[in-house]
Amino acid sequence: MSGAPRPSEEALIARFFAPLAGPGADGLRDDAASLVPSPGHDLVLTADAIVAGIHYFPDDPPASIARKALAVNLSDIAAKGAAARGFLLTLALPDAWTEAWLAAFAEGLGQASRDLGCPLLGGDTVRSGGPALIGVTAVGEVPAGAIVRRTTARVGDRICVSGTIGDAALGLRMRLKPDAAWVRQLDAASRGHITDRYLHPRPRLALAPALLRFATAAMDVSDGLAGDLAKMLPGTGRSAVVDVAAVPLSEAAARAVRTEPDLIDTALTGGDDYEILCTVAPGDRDAFRAAADAAGVPVAVIGTVISGDGPPVFRTDTGPDKGFATPAFSHF
Amino acid sequence: MSGAPRPSEEALIARFFAPLAGPGADGLRDDAASLVPSPGHDLVLTADAIVAGIHYFPDDPPASIARKALAVNLSDIAAKGAAARGFLLTLALPDAWTEAWLAAFAEGLGQASRDLGCPLLGGDTVRSGGPALIGVTAVGEVPAGAIVRRTTARVGDRICVSGTIGDAALGLRMRLKPDAAWVRQLDAASRGHITDRYLHPRPRLALAPALLRFATAAMDVSDGLAGDLAKMLPGTGRSAVVDVAAVPLSEAAARAVRTEPDLIDTALTGGDDYEILCTVAPGDRDAFRAAADAAGVPVAVIGTVISGDGPPVFRTDTGPDKGFATPAFSHF
Repeated sequence: MSGAPRPSEEALIARFFAPLAGPGADGLRDDAASLVPSPGHDLVLTADAIVAGIHYFPDDPPASIARKALAVNLSDIAAKGAAARGFLLTLALPDAWTEAWLAAFAEGLGQASRDLGCPLLGGDTVRSGGPALIGVTAVGEVPAGAIVRRTTARVGDRICVSGTIGDAALGLRMRLKPDAAWVRQLDAASRGHITDRYLHPRPRLALAPALLRFATAAMDVSDGLAGDLAKMLPGTGRSAVVDVAAVPLSEAAARAVRTEPDLIDTALTGGDDYEILCTVAPGDRDAFRAAADAAGVPVAVIGTVISGDGPPVFRTDTGPDKGFATPAFSHF
Repeated sequence: MSGAPRPSEEALIARFFAPLAGPGADGLRDDAASLVPSPGHDLVLTADAIVAGIHYFPDDPPASIARKALAVNLSDIAAKGAAARGFLLTLALPDAWTEAWLAAFAEGLGQASRDLGCPLLGGDTVRSGGPALIGVTAVGEVPAGAIVRRTTARVGDRICVSGTIGDAALGLRMRLKPDAAWVRQLDAASRGHITDRYLHPRPRLALAPALLRFATAAMDVSDGLAGDLAKMLPGTGRSAVVDVAAVPLSEAAARAVRTEPDLIDTALTGGDDYEILCTVAPGDRDAFRAAADAAGVPVAVIGTVISGDGPPVFRTDTGPDKGFATPAFSHF
């Protein structure tokens, strides 16, 4: 506990967070919020936390940290075909928190909340006794029964991803080793692009209606395309073949891979893309792409769900197939 | 990070938490849950986290910690007049977590979830980089528009509390100073009672229907009766007078106060009661008590909402009135 007197939790909430409160949150003066579901809709609920030093760098801009905490949750909401309705925040602060940090965090959270159309409904502020932890529970809604599930792809479905893959993983790698040869080959715009993608996930909420119409299964890519595709096809009987050349790369990522070809593996296995990975029936492929285009979200068809028991196979023109085994154990 | 290989997050979830999953949680195989609202109902949402070494003792039984994390949230749900529908869990584990601890935690969480009729809908498991943090977002529902708010009491309303006040605060005090004179005067059953009340909050979900019918305002008592009553009547124009002799004490707390009269202040200001504090119109007093009795929840009328600007006054037969100023600053 810090020695200097600090504002009470009530004072902090009134000053920094009450301005973000949405309808039903009663100005954060109550211990709970009410949410009026749209008639004929189901709620969609998800919770993800980010921790300083684990999911982000403690010296990242506070506004970027706030945006990431909200965006990674809304990425899950979007992947289920849902529209965002609101979120609850659990903010666990280290002993050394400052009002300047908190003010910038709240300002960034408010901006992200407005940009993403997702008001604050409530939450809790506690001392963490360690690093900061920012936990968000996001609430969305879908027409009754329409939630798009993760593991429901069928053999023959086409595998699609939105946007570009690997930028955030390259941004993280550059942050950890800024003097690497491939980094020195990138121009400033490319370096800025991959840094921005790492710091500022963009949840693909605009794609949700197209997923509702066409996707047979969907999830967001948060732990790397290869690992997440394996999670989409658990158990036995279904596998996937992916054409590596079809995996969409940004100009920046393509340059990095030309300089150092092994970086394609970073792009395929690194995390934090927050793009949508989904499957559509073969006959819906073009209609899905057209609906996604109309929503302003580029999507690429990268492979096919096949019968089989192994992990997804990544096929290349230039060398042997790539397989990325999912580890059964991790240093959790 | 621990040196020994640990099960992956997916393996932990499948082993410990998937058995707790409710309808819509899809066996925790997806990144989000769906919840079908009852027709004509609003959702009620609340989030509270507990942190090891701050809100509980790290060596408390893991099953008790799990129960507390869920119960403190359902106490808020109950205070709003809502029925529990489900919860999401954010579990941030210290580096030194063990599978034995996690197994006992999950077992206790499952038992609490069944006892309280509130299934697990989803969540997230992360490394905390510090002490354990257990964050819960609880979801309840009330008939449309019927949520009972915190600050809506009217002058003249009677102030009521459920159960008994002060047991948990005395249990905590005993845990911190087990050799205090007043503790040595308690018999084993009384010591067991106050320990149990500290470790195992009992959310008053059974009282929710009576609150919906009769309460003009309600909240749960989590930060102490005196401070929470002040929060119920913010701003100017309304205050309260409480008859200290009417504040319900358990047999154990009454004994402690007889031994050491100043402990009444601990009972009135200590936290963790998780009882319901509410107001009812004077003409509804008896009907509310009858409805609460029928629900198996004892309630006591302890005072009245008056016009005035000061903090609530606690009136005693034996000495001057007590006032407990709410601090404007705290060592947050």
